[in-house]
Amino acid sequence: MVGRLIQSAKSAYQYPLIFKQLWHTPRVQAPDQEIVYRDLKRFTYLQIRERIGRLASALSKAGVAPGDTVGVLDWDSHRFLEAFFAIPMMGAVLQTVNVRLSPEQIAYTIDHAGASTLLVNDEFVGLLEGIRSRLPKVKRLIVMSDRPVPQTGSLSFVSEYETLLAAASPDYDFPDFDENTQATTFYTTGTTGQPKGVYYSHRQLVLHSICGLAQFGMAEQQGRFCRDDVYMPITPMFHVHAWGFPWSATLAGVKQVYPGRYEPAMLVKLIKNEGVTFTHGVPTILQMLLDAAASAKADLKGLKMVIGGSALPKALAKRALEAGIDIFAGYGMSETGPLAAVSHVRSKDLTGDPDGEVEFRAKAGIAGPLVDLRIVDPDMKSVPHDGKTAGEIVLRSPWLTQGYFNNPEGSEQLWAGGYLHTSDIATVDANGYVHITDRIKDVIKTGGEWVSSLQIEDLISQCAGVAEVAVIGVKDDRWGERPLALVVKRAADANGVSDAAIKSHLKTFADQGIISKYGIPEKILFIDSIPKTSVGKINKKELRERYGDM
Amino acid sequence: MVGRLIQSAKSAYQYPLIFKQLWHTPRVQAPDQEIVYRDLKRFTYLQIRERIGRLASALSKAGVAPGDTVGVLDWDSHRFLEAFFAIPMMGAVLQTVNVRLSPEQIAYTIDHAGASTLLVNDEFVGLLEGIRSRLPKVKRLIVMSDRPVPQTGSLSFVSEYETLLAAASPDYDFPDFDENTQATTFYTTGTTGQPKGVYYSHRQLVLHSICGLAQFGMAEQQGRFCRDDVYMPITPMFHVHAWGFPWSATLAGVKQVYPGRYEPAMLVKLIKNEGVTFTHGVPTILQMLLDAAASAKADLKGLKMVIGGSALPKALAKRALEAGIDIFAGYGMSETGPLAAVSHVRSKDLTGDPDGEVEFRAKAGIAGPLVDLRIVDPDMKSVPHDGKTAGEIVLRSPWLTQGYFNNPEGSEQLWAGGYLHTSDIATVDANGYVHITDRIKDVIKTGGEWVSSLQIEDLISQCAGVAEVAVIGVKDDRWGERPLALVVKRAADANGVSDAAIKSHLKTFADQGIISKYGIPEKILFIDSIPKTSVGKINKKELRERYGDM
Repeated sequence: MVGRLIQSAKSAYQYPLIFKQLWHTPRVQAPDQEIVYRDLKRFTYLQIRERIGRLASALSKAGVAPGDTVGVLDWDSHRFLEAFFAIPMMGAVLQTVNVRLSPEQIAYTIDHAGASTLLVNDEFVGLLEGIRSRLPKVKRLIVMSDRPVPQTGSLSFVSEYETLLAAASPDYDFPDFDENTQATTFYTTGTTGQPKGVYYSHRQLVLHSICGLAQFGMAEQQGRFCRDDVYMPITPMFHVHAWGFPWSATLAGVKQVYPGRYEPAMLVKLIKNEGVTFTHGVPTILQMLLDAAASAKADLKGLKMVIGGSALPKALAKRALEAGIDIFAGYGMSETGPLAAVSHVRSKDLTGDPDGEVEFRAKAGIAGPLVDLRIVDPDMKSVPHDGKTAGEIVLRSPWLTQGYFNNPEGSEQLWAGGYLHTSDIATVDANGYVHITDRIKDVIKTGGEWVSSLQIEDLISQCAGVAEVAVIGVKDDRWGERPLALVVKRAADANGVSDAAIKSHLKTFADQGIISKYGIPEKILFIDSIPKTSVGKINKKELRERYGDM
Repeated sequence: MVGRLIQSAKSAYQYPLIFKQLWHTPRVQAPDQEIVYRDLKRFTYLQIRERIGRLASALSKAGVAPGDTVGVLDWDSHRFLEAFFAIPMMGAVLQTVNVRLSPEQIAYTIDHAGASTLLVNDEFVGLLEGIRSRLPKVKRLIVMSDRPVPQTGSLSFVSEYETLLAAASPDYDFPDFDENTQATTFYTTGTTGQPKGVYYSHRQLVLHSICGLAQFGMAEQQGRFCRDDVYMPITPMFHVHAWGFPWSATLAGVKQVYPGRYEPAMLVKLIKNEGVTFTHGVPTILQMLLDAAASAKADLKGLKMVIGGSALPKALAKRALEAGIDIFAGYGMSETGPLAAVSHVRSKDLTGDPDGEVEFRAKAGIAGPLVDLRIVDPDMKSVPHDGKTAGEIVLRSPWLTQGYFNNPEGSEQLWAGGYLHTSDIATVDANGYVHITDRIKDVIKTGGEWVSSLQIEDLISQCAGVAEVAVIGVKDDRWGERPLALVVKRAADANGVSDAAIKSHLKTFADQGIISKYGIPEKILFIDSIPKTSVGKINKKELRERYGDM
């Protein structure tokens, strides 16, 4: 069908959705607003904007051209924020390198993305020396450091970041270009095989930034994000762009705080000293933050925190609520930009009773503006919105990766049937609240029944003395699979927990029909710690390798 | 420059920014939310969504095709909301006909836009009979009515709206199409010549809706718009799409109330009975609302109201604040979608003192996300952001009209130098607050000085006994122009106002250097009423015709 098209290519009113447009309002409305890096540096927005111009001038002079890929290896810093803007605004591609991967994987991702320039925090110079020979496409290195004299080891660097910026012009003339130009790439580690590259265009990330502001701004009471907030990421900037918040925060002109490497005491100190009110992270980070605040006798009242990456355990959510944190879950993944849903709870469900509220705050949430989130059966038919019937979450939205870089087969699977497949199993109720019951691969198939490992984990986490828990399926000749619970005791009340206590707790729920009786594990192993992935999620892949044959 | 383009035309992940995408979230999250029409009808969101499908099926069956223009002549109603979605979602163009224009102008706009179908409230059947012969392109009429049997006069109608909908399928398969497809058109009356047609694409209006939600959502404390709100327009839907709020409100899934023709008592009744918390209108409407609430002994506490179209007089703003209304100005025009800026006041400027707050609440406000609002001198150079230096507001944003329909000369002037020219003169301060000092054509040039008619009006409006005031320039042999003040006395305290009292009030400000002494008019005329344009603004064109030679 053809309506009346009204956009011509050359007109003055062409307005591409590209990163430089995010700066129109903060530049005028928040020129003196602060951007802080640890307890080391403070800049104004205007200074950061100038430094973005300088970085582009310097990179351009060093030979970086539109279409080139520039990798960054750094902890969360003002430098990373500068790279978040300068590199895409030049028309180049920003690769956020996951520095928590193994050296082999880091080498693989940099080479696979085709990066020709790297900005490297000198903490990673040792690592880089070890893999330099495997990076033939990398033509130039720039070192960044918090030290007066950066460590460069045996590597040859074009120059040091601050020296380059000081010598460069702040007045880089950032051009207009097609909004479908690639802006970023990064790699996601799956359960099998090599890391996979996802990639995003300017249009996608600008729309993600605005819809994020709309979604968090529209929230009735809880979990809002507004101009009065002070923002600090505790999800790494190399991991799905710190969920895109650095761009939204800049657009909103709020004060920003970048904490470098995540050190619990420093995080608590920055929250208190800089007045941080809005952050986000995985459940492990929340736990760490609560412990660190307790040690420092600091309180975290008034902090808003979005939890993602893994399910938010209700017991942990309750502990955070009781500490005065406005806690709530978000939902998304590397492939989805990431924002798909956020647990902005309706006013009527904010009863003030922590047990009642965590039921909503720990859900995956409600889908944001423009997100076509469906829960479907294997034939792609929508399941009823009854809060009971489960299906796979599939998505369309303006900011989903188009596939995996140089991986047509993986891309095709991801987009089967015209929707992005998340592999997450969920229900949706009459108010649109999405509740994840499991990952497709984390469902335990036992005796012809499906048991949700997430649900069993959630119930076990409520037992006294349990610090952490993971449930995996182990092979069983008779039942196909059986659940195995791996439990870490909490030092403070380790004596309160036992095999029998956990089983009896689960039995109560099985008797009420809340879980299947097949969901009660025969085996409960008490272990010292649960392995995590590079982004802080429970590493079930490693647990399966270690305990899957038990 | 060429970066790496990543959007291919046929992929599954294509996501055009078209109206149907606004329905993904409310459909799932607010299926039972209410949409109310006066005290006559109530629908749920799901029912309205079904009716949108039915309307598209009916129009399609009647012969409306993608690219056709369908005009609507109605007061604010659920039917108009249905047309806001159904017509553009089919790929057709919605023309919102300004029914307050003269019959000649109405005929001109319908014919000039090339509308082939009209949806007509039967209140306008008499009007339409008079101009039918001048509408040769109009092929079909559909009558709408609140009465059991619509009045059709001598005209021939395809059918009646409700009958058509009842017979049509709700399952219209709204297609995907290019987001640059034209969605709407309407006409704006200038100071000279015929009304001019502006036009908007799906992409533009979807971006306007989302950025509007982001802008109102991000507000710290005052003037927010969130899911708890109940929305009612008091800016006509035929006038710049009721500022785009019907689309934003639907996307947010809030309760909506459509008041039909604006009758003061009905407006107050709906606000109280339906719990309306968010509305918008011109200053005259606010005045009318305050008076009507006073008559009805109703209070308007908790109502949020955006004022646009004309400057918000501080005295009126203060009266509204004192009545418990969260009052604030917005800035935009027919050519700008309209949203360009909103007076969301920073927390630190919300002191609780009405006199202090109205200084901020009455400004044009701060520009919204993605709006490149500049204040420039005649050479298009930006003026300093000092709150003093004035220049013309020029704009770029993703939702500005590309020009005037079939009017290349007007379009070229509008977009001179690559920015849309507003003809508004303003200052901007270090926090990005924009303050309009005058319209280019409303500046009075006297003795080589520029006098702001808006500023003089604002000062006179503060005098006791003044209900309304307009200041225009009148010809003067010696000075070029001299200001003339036209004042309407307030019935309650008419005796308090006099020529001498007004001049002495102005002299105080001239003595302090706040206005030029040339700004004090020699002549102050007391008149019975000030003529308004069809959208409720002071009609300076008519005032100049009537009094300009005095």
